Amino acid sequence: MAMPQPDERILERAPQIVTALRGVLPEDAVIDDPQETLAYECDALTAYRCAPLAVVLPRTTAEVAEAMRVCGVMGVPVVPRGAGTSLAGGALPTADCVVIGTARLNQVLEIDTDNRFIRVQTGVTNLSVSEVLEPHGFFYAPDPSSQLACTIAGNIAMNSGGAHCLKYGVTTNNLMGATVVLTTGEIVELGGAELASSGLDLLGLLCGSEGQLGIVTEAFLRILPRPEGARPMLIGFDSPEVAGECVARIIRSGVLPVAIEYMDEPCLRAVEDFAQAGYPKCAAVLIVEVEGSPDEIADQIARIRAIADELEPVEFRESRNADDALAIWKGRKSAFGAMGRLGDYICLDGTVPVGQLPHTLRRIGELSKQHGLEVANVFHAGDGNMHPLILFNANEPGQLERAEAFGADILRLCVEVGGCLTGEHGVGVEKRDLMDVQYDAPDLAMQMEVKDVFDPTWILNPAKVFPLQASAAHRLKAVQ
Amino acid sequence: MAMPQPDERILERAPQIVTALRGVLPEDAVIDDPQETLAYECDALTAYRCAPLAVVLPRTTAEVAEAMRVCGVMGVPVVPRGAGTSLAGGALPTADCVVIGTARLNQVLEIDTDNRFIRVQTGVTNLSVSEVLEPHGFFYAPDPSSQLACTIAGNIAMNSGGAHCLKYGVTTNNLMGATVVLTTGEIVELGGAELASSGLDLLGLLCGSEGQLGIVTEAFLRILPRPEGARPMLIGFDSPEVAGECVARIIRSGVLPVAIEYMDEPCLRAVEDFAQAGYPKCAAVLIVEVEGSPDEIADQIARIRAIADELEPVEFRESRNADDALAIWKGRKSAFGAMGRLGDYICLDGTVPVGQLPHTLRRIGELSKQHGLEVANVFHAGDGNMHPLILFNANEPGQLERAEAFGADILRLCVEVGGCLTGEHGVGVEKRDLMDVQYDAPDLAMQMEVKDVFDPTWILNPAKVFPLQASAAHRLKAVQ
Repeated sequence: MAMPQPDERILERAPQIVTALRGVLPEDAVIDDPQETLAYECDALTAYRCAPLAVVLPRTTAEVAEAMRVCGVMGVPVVPRGAGTSLAGGALPTADCVVIGTARLNQVLEIDTDNRFIRVQTGVTNLSVSEVLEPHGFFYAPDPSSQLACTIAGNIAMNSGGAHCLKYGVTTNNLMGATVVLTTGEIVELGGAELASSGLDLLGLLCGSEGQLGIVTEAFLRILPRPEGARPMLIGFDSPEVAGECVARIIRSGVLPVAIEYMDEPCLRAVEDFAQAGYPKCAAVLIVEVEGSPDEIADQIARIRAIADELEPVEFRESRNADDALAIWKGRKSAFGAMGRLGDYICLDGTVPVGQLPHTLRRIGELSKQHGLEVANVFHAGDGNMHPLILFNANEPGQLERAEAFGADILRLCVEVGGCLTGEHGVGVEKRDLMDVQYDAPDLAMQMEVKDVFDPTWILNPAKVFPLQASAAHRLKAVQ
Repeated sequence: MAMPQPDERILERAPQIVTALRGVLPEDAVIDDPQETLAYECDALTAYRCAPLAVVLPRTTAEVAEAMRVCGVMGVPVVPRGAGTSLAGGALPTADCVVIGTARLNQVLEIDTDNRFIRVQTGVTNLSVSEVLEPHGFFYAPDPSSQLACTIAGNIAMNSGGAHCLKYGVTTNNLMGATVVLTTGEIVELGGAELASSGLDLLGLLCGSEGQLGIVTEAFLRILPRPEGARPMLIGFDSPEVAGECVARIIRSGVLPVAIEYMDEPCLRAVEDFAQAGYPKCAAVLIVEVEGSPDEIADQIARIRAIADELEPVEFRESRNADDALAIWKGRKSAFGAMGRLGDYICLDGTVPVGQLPHTLRRIGELSKQHGLEVANVFHAGDGNMHPLILFNANEPGQLERAEAFGADILRLCVEVGGCLTGEHGVGVEKRDLMDVQYDAPDLAMQMEVKDVFDPTWILNPAKVFPLQASAAHRLKAVQ
């Protein structure tokens, strides 16, 4: 993926920029020692690396505003960063940028169970939000796989999902309000303790905008009472397409599990080698979890069992207690770790209508043969959010490029069947140059003109989301 | 509410404008006979009336695009219109405008139960969508009170809700894609058969934008399988605040009814006189409906009964069959008709955090005494979406103004407790001049700059949503 050349005029002014930042921020909030800025050179898309000019780590909205104002006035690109867990390069720096990190924005500000919200600074991690709510009997629904590390700031930027989003929706469905710092240093409040909005829904626009419009420093999040209980079942099939059909039929029937996870044979093999979860040897496994009162759980399991039985599964395993449940989830939870042992991989994130799962899985198999690279599928099947993992050898010249070409073909396929480039990882740099597969020129132009409003000089999170050439044109127009 | 003076230069060119429209549209699609345009002089906010310059009724997206292009080129304001059921004046014409009506965009284009969507032209009525889905065992969730008449176009423009939105979300949670005509006549596609999006969420921005950004001519809507059964219960309390507390406790407990409706004593009296529904004589009644399998229903009723019992209701009536259920709903369904017999009213639409319901109901009672006007409350309590009806006598000079002042005080109260000016009726002309109660100047400026992108000359749905002075400044800037 091409990245733009850094602006020499900015690099030359690096000392002045750092001095200006130090002028408005506490001493320890500005980092420019190359040894230390190196820690920010990449996110979880580690194939791409570039250390920033400086890193700032503010503790308050006011400090973020000061840093943004300095960068805005001096024309310095800003790369917002949560925990750096983006798989799409959403937090990849440029050499001429200042990274604004949320690591120290880690305060829980208010818990209101009556009105079902929590207000936090956005540097808190996703998991810690649910942890702090546990004594109150509540939880925060979106649960990305990276929830131990990833921040609410990153979740909002990427409109993150997770296994439980089938029932509870993704971040945009659970975000009630946000404090946003604009490139001018202005601070605006969108939404609040109540979900409804008047006028244009800028909060909805902001969610998933990948740091292109502003930096969210505080958020009101919708919280939910913990369900009485939850029970997973494991269903094995001897064909990926039949497993896909089973997902489609469950969804069509109106049962709404909290999670439907899918693992195919290459994934199952890796998981067994790594975690000995005792999964059946078959072409595909579904993990379906339901929750509610004991009656509700029994009712839902019976209905799902009836649907699965019509498709002749090779195994149907129902958890009867907490140990069973842990055993069923054990393999799935270790899937990404297990795949890591197989070698290098890129993890995709296309989304398709659920009815298209069988066709899409078959076509991915065919593309795997064409490109000569193995692919493993492990993903949130219930909402059609696929995560094909393409395995390759980074040390063999040309393999990364082949893996990327294969990935691009899969994403084109997703769009072709009525789906979309990304479900929860975002566009970042990874899918930037595929945006015109999904959008016509007028659609993309409109998105970029909306960015013009929030970030007229295009300093926010450069070289992401929009095709490089198109975004360069907008930046140029702003400078003239 | 002040409306801007019509632009004389446009009125002078009326014949040329009509001729230009006739040049690109079928003969019967353009109406300029003052006898006929009179039918479009108002919507359901009948206190304000103004016949448009002309009305066009296209049958296809291409025809809407042609009409928009003509208006765009000639600089003529366009007022989009669904069925004209807006209670906030969202479809109120100006004398110098062309109304583009969706009455003939009434085709159902595709039903896909596997992928759970229906694709329609947006002039279809809300109820007819669920009717056409009934043989398939599916339904469309948002159900505004006006669902017999109101169109999907209007639902999208206002982000409409309804009694069942507590469980299923409002329009924005059920809208998957849209075909939009811009003021240039360009046609863009946002979203589609799959809910996820890449880049900026323009579909979310469009939903609820009240005709300020474009005209939606076709839509992909999320459809749901019909539940096995539904059962309402009626709970009477001798205090509005205790009824409000009951709502808050149900929500906090994690039970999720499909509907929690609230009626206070003035409303109950009117309903009894009109419909003899046999409701108890008390200060407030809740109708709570749950749905699911027989087991799920029984479980939820038991939990709600336990919560209500703690608050010592004067009555708890549980429906045991379809006749019981009809009897419970009968009064609520006739509430607006019943109130109409009491005289003139304005129906508000503020939204508050559910925990603030008791306080807000008490303050509305106090405001009623201060303003010397009676108020009746009948609304969707579960999501805090209040609909106070202020009763007044339109024939007595000054009463409309007093009712409006009372209404403005209620909406200020909603914002003050952390709520919002509108839940589902939109801002329209009604709340236009209160937007600065909810938003600071920079917040509002940002919304208006986003409108600049879609509608640079501000011809779409003039004098709505944004304070008159502010929107006049944007229009002026565009013309210069």
